[in-house]
Amino acid sequence: MNDVIGGEGDQTSQLSDEELSRLAHDLKTPLAMIVGYAELLDTRDDEEIRREAPQLIMQAAERLSSALDQLLESLEAEAAETGSSNQNVEP
Amino acid sequence: MNDVIGGEGDQTSQLSDEELSRLAHDLKTPLAMIVGYAELLDTRDDEEIRREAPQLIMQAAERLSSALDQLLESLEAEAAETGSSNQNVEP
Repeated sequence: MNDVIGGEGDQTSQLSDEELSRLAHDLKTPLAMIVGYAELLDTRDDEEIRREAPQLIMQAAERLSSALDQLLESLEAEAAETGSSNQNVEP
Repeated sequence: MNDVIGGEGDQTSQLSDEELSRLAHDLKTPLAMIVGYAELLDTRDDEEIRREAPQLIMQAAERLSSALDQLLESLEAEAAETGSSNQNVEP
């Protein structure tokens, strides 16, 4: 898994616009896949879909989960940091 | 949907620990439900599960999606704010 957050230096682990849009992509892509497979399961009575879609949903959920964990860790770190020393970053 | 983020005042839309853990909960609960239903679909050959689980997955995905949108909007707002005026919050 690539390091989405706080790559360049340690400036308050603030997310850049670029990091944010990559993050949004990393979270929304697997979610869209989950919805797509669930819709297939809901609308089609197909043996292959029934066999494969649940596993594909689980794989997408795992991707989403790890992107989410990464984001939440970064937000926790940021909260801890700015909570204790908000204006003391650098003049 | 309740306002998870930035409820109290406008201090840099920084997330508090409490908001963070509520947020984590709002994101992880539907994700865990998605995984649970997908596992049921994967392991059980049951008519009722086959009929209901896909819709429950879509409902959970929708909850997750709106929690996610809320979070991303807040992060974008925060990035815009601190990006333009990082150390100028208040002395």
